[in-house]
Amino acid sequence: MKKNITVILGDGIGPEVTQQSIKVLNAIGEQYGHQFTYSYQLMGADAIDKTGNPLPDETVESCLKTDAVLFGAIGHPKYDNDPTAKVRPEQGLLKLRKSLQLFANIRPITIYPSLHHLSPLKSKALEDVDMVIYRELTGGIYFGKKTLNKEGTQASDDCVYTIEEIERIAHLAFKNAQQRRKKLTLVDKANVLETSRLWRKVVQQLASQYADVAVDYMFVDNASMQIILNPKQFDVILTENMFGDIISDEASVLSGSLGLAPSASVGKGTALFEPIHGSYPQAAGKDIANPIGSILSAAMMLDHFEMYNEAQVVRNAVAWTLQSGFVTKDIDPINNYSTSTIGDLIRDFIENKL
Amino acid sequence: MKKNITVILGDGIGPEVTQQSIKVLNAIGEQYGHQFTYSYQLMGADAIDKTGNPLPDETVESCLKTDAVLFGAIGHPKYDNDPTAKVRPEQGLLKLRKSLQLFANIRPITIYPSLHHLSPLKSKALEDVDMVIYRELTGGIYFGKKTLNKEGTQASDDCVYTIEEIERIAHLAFKNAQQRRKKLTLVDKANVLETSRLWRKVVQQLASQYADVAVDYMFVDNASMQIILNPKQFDVILTENMFGDIISDEASVLSGSLGLAPSASVGKGTALFEPIHGSYPQAAGKDIANPIGSILSAAMMLDHFEMYNEAQVVRNAVAWTLQSGFVTKDIDPINNYSTSTIGDLIRDFIENKL
Ligand SMILES: [Mg+2]
Ligand SMILES: [Mg+2]
Repeated sequence: MKKNITVILGDGIGPEVTQQSIKVLNAIGEQYGHQFTYSYQLMGADAIDKTGNPLPDETVESCLKTDAVLFGAIGHPKYDNDPTAKVRPEQGLLKLRKSLQLFANIRPITIYPSLHHLSPLKSKALEDVDMVIYRELTGGIYFGKKTLNKEGTQASDDCVYTIEEIERIAHLAFKNAQQRRKKLTLVDKANVLETSRLWRKVVQQLASQYADVAVDYMFVDNASMQIILNPKQFDVILTENMFGDIISDEASVLSGSLGLAPSASVGKGTALFEPIHGSYPQAAGKDIANPIGSILSAAMMLDHFEMYNEAQVVRNAVAWTLQSGFVTKDIDPINNYSTSTIGDLIRDFIENKL
Repeated sequence: MKKNITVILGDGIGPEVTQQSIKVLNAIGEQYGHQFTYSYQLMGADAIDKTGNPLPDETVESCLKTDAVLFGAIGHPKYDNDPTAKVRPEQGLLKLRKSLQLFANIRPITIYPSLHHLSPLKSKALEDVDMVIYRELTGGIYFGKKTLNKEGTQASDDCVYTIEEIERIAHLAFKNAQQRRKKLTLVDKANVLETSRLWRKVVQQLASQYADVAVDYMFVDNASMQIILNPKQFDVILTENMFGDIISDEASVLSGSLGLAPSASVGKGTALFEPIHGSYPQAAGKDIANPIGSILSAAMMLDHFEMYNEAQVVRNAVAWTLQSGFVTKDIDPINNYSTSTIGDLIRDFIENKL
């Protein structure tokens, strides 16, 4: 297969981790006879420095016409610490999500036995944890109407959802559940919120189209406990934007390192793949950042291309490095390997050199 | 001192755990020369069964004129499982909160070294954890305007806050921080929500009146991680209604048992004290429920009466039972003691018989 990928290296450690993913994708291409071509584009602080615009038109155009976007990270302290800055790196990503109509953020939570000691949870609670969270990304209270009265004494944020917004992401979550352990948990607050009751109604109605998927419903406050108490009960979690923000971040700490966690954002247009970690500017250029979050994001991209075997080979390679102790400094402060060495090892594993 | 207390035993295990608190309060009264009198009132399923009303007027009247309310638990499955039920036990508590204008829910999170093994978190993360969460209870999205359009295709929930609503709970939280480790963390989502920006503005302005308190600000998605990763960083957490619902429930699992956790709800009128656990109907009448959540709620009531030494004696007695292995079945399924025995032991400790 031929696939054209827009690569946005971004800021901080973005370039060095994304370069490892390119290595890995090229190795997959060679082994499986695919041709991946890359269109490198700018976004974030890097784009502001070079063009004055956090998201140049060229970047959007490239993303719209390629098969997927692989993105590193965004953000630089020189903008964060300047309250007068009119353009901010983060604006680039928000605008890109909007341009690509990315309505679903997908985060798998995977636990590696060799890293149990890094998790805040006891090992027993971590066994068999394997979930994926579908967070709605373009609706809800983050995007609703905001008001502040003239006197500045009263503020409001409106949370709105339509059936269409709920249905499109629910279909994605149900389909993924069918490929997994066939369980879907809707996280809401239907005892209190009208929008949650609409989510529940839509999911109940769709459930009949996915008769092989068991559906359950959990209030968000209970979910925040259950993710710690008994995370293995979850297979696919579906939830609205703000609840998804909170519980996906909560769940992401279970694995023991944010540096391992990938994500995909999919929608009507081209899908985007990025590690959940930030630009971590203190580590930039030092070849110490963990590239696994980016490499597993590339694996999610391969799944998106329906290259399921290829994606699994990448995951196997990652699992092999972790259990062999080939890890970066965030995982093991004493015995560790550089960003590029981890990339090389995963490439070599894929090319059967190991 | 003389204090008149409205006691609402409520449903399920409510009566048997609350009776232990009465024992403890009477022991404190005897030892310290206070006179506690009790006015027993109905609420919940118990009240529906006896009067048809989940919150009889008499109960409200008693609460309004007494010095504090001690409440057990509410809810019965015969109402939960009947979707046609017009009156529900929970309506009683919601209406009482409104009648008493209870705008702040206060939940201390205490960790007992002898119970580390019950926590989902590793012991290392539990050391020195000692926080209290102030959750706004009458505003925000749970109480905002709700809409569903005629076609049933679009729903909304409005989140509204006024400066007054924020100030009154912020003062309580700042004052408590002054009595504690002098740190206050506002949990919000000020990068996205207008209401959160108002919370932040109000807290920033009040901070100058409490110069001895260090204030920091944390986004709610980060807070959901930090509560697991590094809970000891928190002293007093202040937050709005829904964020408080989610993170106070999340934090409550750290101690290893929901049965241990007390709460206070305070406002313009009489304050109400209750364990955070529910009515747990399966255990009702078996003398196996954990009375510590209720007894520590009674200790919070003593603090509210400014009987600080007395409250501390109750807490010392509780800590002594836990470290001595005098615990209920939820804490130790093999070697355990009955609800009433734990109450007796705590009473005897207070009376210096132990
Ligand atoms: Mg987040
Ligand atoms: Mg709750």
